[in-house]
Amino acid sequence: MEQIKDYLNTHKDRFINELIDLLKIPSVSADSAFSEDVHETARVVKDALLAAGCDHAEICETKGYPVVYGEKMVDPNLPTVLVYGHYDVQPPDPLDLWHSPPFEPVIKKTDIHPDGAIFARGACDDKGQFYMHVKALEFMVKTDQLPCNVKFMIEGEEEVGSDSLEDFLKENQKKLSNDIILISDTGMISKDVPSITTGLRGLSYVEVEVTGPNRDLHSGIYGGAVPNPINILAKMIASLHDGDNRITIPGFYDKVEEVSAAERAEMAKAPFDLEEYKKALDIDDVYGEKGYTTPERYSIRPTLDVNGIWGGYTGEGAKTVIASKAYAKISMRLVPNQDPNEITELFAKHFVSIAPKGVKVKVTPHHGGLPYVTNIDSIGYKAAAKAYETTFGKTPIPERTGGSIPIVALFEQVLGSKTILMGFGLDSDAIHSPNEHFGVWNYLKGIETIPYFYKYFTELSQ
Amino acid sequence: MEQIKDYLNTHKDRFINELIDLLKIPSVSADSAFSEDVHETARVVKDALLAAGCDHAEICETKGYPVVYGEKMVDPNLPTVLVYGHYDVQPPDPLDLWHSPPFEPVIKKTDIHPDGAIFARGACDDKGQFYMHVKALEFMVKTDQLPCNVKFMIEGEEEVGSDSLEDFLKENQKKLSNDIILISDTGMISKDVPSITTGLRGLSYVEVEVTGPNRDLHSGIYGGAVPNPINILAKMIASLHDGDNRITIPGFYDKVEEVSAAERAEMAKAPFDLEEYKKALDIDDVYGEKGYTTPERYSIRPTLDVNGIWGGYTGEGAKTVIASKAYAKISMRLVPNQDPNEITELFAKHFVSIAPKGVKVKVTPHHGGLPYVTNIDSIGYKAAAKAYETTFGKTPIPERTGGSIPIVALFEQVLGSKTILMGFGLDSDAIHSPNEHFGVWNYLKGIETIPYFYKYFTELSQ
Repeated sequence: MEQIKDYLNTHKDRFINELIDLLKIPSVSADSAFSEDVHETARVVKDALLAAGCDHAEICETKGYPVVYGEKMVDPNLPTVLVYGHYDVQPPDPLDLWHSPPFEPVIKKTDIHPDGAIFARGACDDKGQFYMHVKALEFMVKTDQLPCNVKFMIEGEEEVGSDSLEDFLKENQKKLSNDIILISDTGMISKDVPSITTGLRGLSYVEVEVTGPNRDLHSGIYGGAVPNPINILAKMIASLHDGDNRITIPGFYDKVEEVSAAERAEMAKAPFDLEEYKKALDIDDVYGEKGYTTPERYSIRPTLDVNGIWGGYTGEGAKTVIASKAYAKISMRLVPNQDPNEITELFAKHFVSIAPKGVKVKVTPHHGGLPYVTNIDSIGYKAAAKAYETTFGKTPIPERTGGSIPIVALFEQVLGSKTILMGFGLDSDAIHSPNEHFGVWNYLKGIETIPYFYKYFTELSQ
Repeated sequence: MEQIKDYLNTHKDRFINELIDLLKIPSVSADSAFSEDVHETARVVKDALLAAGCDHAEICETKGYPVVYGEKMVDPNLPTVLVYGHYDVQPPDPLDLWHSPPFEPVIKKTDIHPDGAIFARGACDDKGQFYMHVKALEFMVKTDQLPCNVKFMIEGEEEVGSDSLEDFLKENQKKLSNDIILISDTGMISKDVPSITTGLRGLSYVEVEVTGPNRDLHSGIYGGAVPNPINILAKMIASLHDGDNRITIPGFYDKVEEVSAAERAEMAKAPFDLEEYKKALDIDDVYGEKGYTTPERYSIRPTLDVNGIWGGYTGEGAKTVIASKAYAKISMRLVPNQDPNEITELFAKHFVSIAPKGVKVKVTPHHGGLPYVTNIDSIGYKAAAKAYETTFGKTPIPERTGGSIPIVALFEQVLGSKTILMGFGLDSDAIHSPNEHFGVWNYLKGIETIPYFYKYFTELSQ
């Protein structure tokens, strides 16, 4: 890929400014108050695809937020790469913990990013990362080095479960036909230690509601005599892990494919510093399933976390009330071969069964996703590994991550293709947290690396 | 007390309208946004005391909200009754569960109140109930039947712990000197079954904060590997009760005076219908400490309830986050001879000790209060019992309640007087809940009964 470094040098300020403009639009899919902004973002993405060199780009309406589709077809005999990304972002709350407003991007230098990082909600997840692919296309088209066909499928509901995507895929199988799918929505170990994500955990997400008495009660007059839904919800949640921090839902681990000792030994070779890990989070100790290391706990083991809990009086001062209702949002990360629908059912059945007689329990499932593991012998993986070797000067480490991208399994089911996860983010980018950011160096490195994937994938496909 | 029924008949509409006007002012002491309204309410109360016949009334500033003081001194050789009440009210939330706005009083008929009940925050607790004393005074003064001296001490911080009251009592011991203190801030068993509260539980109230990682985290990347403060808070709260629902804090029960089998047998004679109790609350089962009946659980046994809990993402939809912090408001009702300060310390020490290493715990005490039990052989109790007998036609049942009025023990300590709790509310009045109300029949019955207390107390004191 000749001239990539020169092209980057010449155009990098524009590349950064275009991304900043995209980040200014608060495309928060979880909150209907931002609906107009989500739609506006789709239009901006479509225009960007056309400007980058797509022959054709369109906004495809769905029953939810639209999918932006674009393509540059060179030759039907050449392979086709389909790039997936999402233009919607996580809600920014809690707002008071941001040092700069989440939708007013600023570039600040940090220890990890001496060249600066762009601070904004979506900087890394996923606008910064998918936009690298748009700029990579621009480079290849402008310098006439596009080795194969490219299609883009950028959706607007990833943060809320991609509810419309399955129908979109099924209705557009021909249009979306491809040889490999490329996604940048994961991270690397560090700027000096490139890695490629080879495994994703699955997801099961539920919301629970526990109802005790039919109204809020005075905790003096009734305290001690009636079921208190908050106390009871706490007991029920507490019971979901045993003393070894194993999940107690019957059947939960039945389909878990235990990772072999040999593979665990390989994994253990990847650099990981427990002291640094604890220090970065300011915790005196890690916490998880007995018998597994920290990297194993967040990658090859299933988990259960309460993402939110509320009930009763939470305002200023004291109020002596027994709440009528208590609520929690609970999610489970899954590993092969757990099935999210089955796990959600097992959870619901178990949770309802452990409720004492004085309360009523409601379990509402949210979106889920299958776990996924990539084969490192595939040409897609090899092409990606070679691309990182070219631009980083070292072989990337294959790494199973704790995060989920539920639609990856869906892509294989509906479109019949594998996915390669070429991520350039870092754990410290604080995605889903306040002060999310994306390193300028990482952004430009991604734009530099991606064209090599196209080159090597085309070569290896022949 | 001649003519009381006639006087009531003649003036009852005005009595009701005056109370309604008082209820319109949102004197919410817990929320500083209502500060002006709290102060305005104090002024209205002072004017009401003067209009009712007090020779003297004043607003006594404190470092918090003022105490309204009033007096009608007849003869220094006669006994002095000191009436305590509070003009502040509980916060009205959750607002969406009120059928009519909490500060726009309406009179509605209900099954229990065919003559109508006044629906508003504070209707029963405590504006309706203290205002009965103001109207009782008016009756006695206007018909020249006041048998003894009367003093009024109506404060504005009861719902937030009466923080300024102790200093006020200590600085005004002479002014407040009395032979008995009268409070109407409790209930009766029912309109046909008058009862007098002879016991109050104490209160210890704390707020806890559990901190895990130093920022919100992505629950995929970190889930399973780090301490999740919500899961951990749930475990800690769950551990506070054992399988028999006994509280597990070391030393918690050490000073509890066990109620004798004989007294428990007496208590068991008071009417209580468990099926009705469950039906009114719409619960399939009650819930509490093994070995005790429901009335025992809410009156003679100490308890621990979580009044509020929050942490993580609680908005619309799903967010896969591990929160940095989780919070709860926890209160304990106490019985003689537990000491609230000691219990708060035992709680804090224990709660911090059960936290796993990966989290930090902060415990912040709120206001507390000592438990209190009245001797039914006192002339104060006898005068009250006789007053109820006169107007209800039956002997009131002595009953220990679950609620707390922390300043009752303080009154004895600082002013040296006992307190008689003459309440006319009902459990169904939903104090501290949405749709709080007070029966018109109960309000008028209280105004009718209170003058008899003055009569009999004066007689028995001679």
